[in-house]
Amino acid sequence: MTVLILTSEEDVTADMVVLRLGEAGVPVVRLDPADLTNGVALSGEYVRGACRGHLSVGGRLVSMNGLRSIWVRRPGNAAVKAAQPSAWLTEESSQALYGMLRATDARWMNHPDAARRARHKPWQLHLAQRTGLAVPATLITTFPQAAREFAERFPDLVVKPVSGAHPQEPPRAVPTSRVAPDADFAAVAFGPTLLQRRVVKQADIRLTVIGDTLLAARKPADPAAHPDDVDVRFAPSVSPWLPADVPPRIAEAVLRYLREAELAYGAFDFAEDADGIWWFLECNQSGQFGFVEMDTGQPIAAAIATWLAMDGHSGHARAEGGRSATC
Amino acid sequence: MTVLILTSEEDVTADMVVLRLGEAGVPVVRLDPADLTNGVALSGEYVRGACRGHLSVGGRLVSMNGLRSIWVRRPGNAAVKAAQPSAWLTEESSQALYGMLRATDARWMNHPDAARRARHKPWQLHLAQRTGLAVPATLITTFPQAAREFAERFPDLVVKPVSGAHPQEPPRAVPTSRVAPDADFAAVAFGPTLLQRRVVKQADIRLTVIGDTLLAARKPADPAAHPDDVDVRFAPSVSPWLPADVPPRIAEAVLRYLREAELAYGAFDFAEDADGIWWFLECNQSGQFGFVEMDTGQPIAAAIATWLAMDGHSGHARAEGGRSATC
Repeated sequence: MTVLILTSEEDVTADMVVLRLGEAGVPVVRLDPADLTNGVALSGEYVRGACRGHLSVGGRLVSMNGLRSIWVRRPGNAAVKAAQPSAWLTEESSQALYGMLRATDARWMNHPDAARRARHKPWQLHLAQRTGLAVPATLITTFPQAAREFAERFPDLVVKPVSGAHPQEPPRAVPTSRVAPDADFAAVAFGPTLLQRRVVKQADIRLTVIGDTLLAARKPADPAAHPDDVDVRFAPSVSPWLPADVPPRIAEAVLRYLREAELAYGAFDFAEDADGIWWFLECNQSGQFGFVEMDTGQPIAAAIATWLAMDGHSGHARAEGGRSATC
Repeated sequence: MTVLILTSEEDVTADMVVLRLGEAGVPVVRLDPADLTNGVALSGEYVRGACRGHLSVGGRLVSMNGLRSIWVRRPGNAAVKAAQPSAWLTEESSQALYGMLRATDARWMNHPDAARRARHKPWQLHLAQRTGLAVPATLITTFPQAAREFAERFPDLVVKPVSGAHPQEPPRAVPTSRVAPDADFAAVAFGPTLLQRRVVKQADIRLTVIGDTLLAARKPADPAAHPDDVDVRFAPSVSPWLPADVPPRIAEAVLRYLREAELAYGAFDFAEDADGIWWFLECNQSGQFGFVEMDTGQPIAAAIATWLAMDGHSGHARAEGGRSATC
């Protein structure tokens, strides 16, 4: 049973996982959908109630029925490196590849549908509430008056994007910023705005969950930092990430979160306040982990390799074709 | 409890359903996501574990907690009609709107995730096989040799796109065509090709399923038609669509198909052969029904209105927030 890794050619994080799988003697196929029809080929046959699919990568043929798991790491868009790329070829190739893979029994980290849903910030906030995580008071609105009333109730606010990175080429991260006390919020009418009570934090927490494995890292806040430096990605760093214990209630809540989200992997960001409470900021289903592994020495890549190598259809991933023995 | 219809301004099919809902006294809100920030506003608040969302359309305020059902009919892209449209505003608005709606208890026709998955032709073929429908022998491949061997086993073939309509502006339907007996299939290497055994058909069947309601229509093939006219959408029409009975085995299979696909609405296309067997061609989760209703007089719009007006969280749609009383 083979592990399929969908990612681009240059991906040192994937390299780390491939190395672990190799050491464990688990067959791995690494494939970039961008290479379809140019080094990568596919075929699926539906005859007399049976379904047989194959992939070919660099001349190596793999049966789709023999896929153990699929890691959607950082795949390129289908067929964009073809000799004559086009929007139509990308659509045809994407539908063919992901349509066939969706019909296999393989376990996914993460399933494309679950991954897509998991990006929605309002859905994240609601799920975090339901699973028992502490969520800072948040408003997403295009009503200036709603924003003003919210700012009266919660005077110390940050603003951040609803959707994540700005979709330019290459995508640009938009920092979380403090809202000035005299903001009038009239511009809220022109686009959805996410306002959130600022957590006065004593540390940032990154909790990486791989199946049932929880690995938390903590980065103490710089006591000398300016209160406007709220975004850990942009603030000057004074301390490395250090391994941290996960409070049992948090462990229970995040496992429930991932189960309900049908995700096998999630990188949770929390802000720890002066009382030690972990406030949920977001769960990134494709969150990077290299920087945490580097600082803490936590075996994240190894945990991913172990999850991918597991037998059976367990875990949080859904196996849609799981009721059939073929494809 | 309100029915929310997501569609563009000019949509006579939606008009028919709105009319029925109005007659039944069911509150309806019709909204085009394209109008976001310009006539349409939204707000969602997440405070102390509770979640409250609102939409405003033309000055009318609707609570998201009070949504009974959501019909994703033909929505425009979010915020494209805003005063200053941009890819970033569309992404922010789409994530905000659909993120909030995903967290409601409303029943969906159809849920965006299920709809997206249901478009994949390889997945459709596999699901049709599993649910007991007759599927004509099909190959989707980029291997010329696989195509040649398939053509030897099944000499009478049609070719059609994997993904549906060509993504030009406006999108262009690509007709299903017969494969010439001397085709050499070398070009298959340049893009996934879907080859299917041609069903020598005595009729086309359109089976529209709305929840548990099945409405079949049949269009007899023109006995004088040229054998190359395989695509009913492009062939000259000699007979209108006529109401037809649904064989019990087919009824059972399509209901299972929609249940497993988590769809509340599906338009199945079959080819009926000389033995009366209905061969599955595809299931379109957003299939048009106006032309069938016009020819047959079948109450498709009324069945949709009835489904949308139903109470409770039954049916095939998934209600992701169904475990919470709010949002």
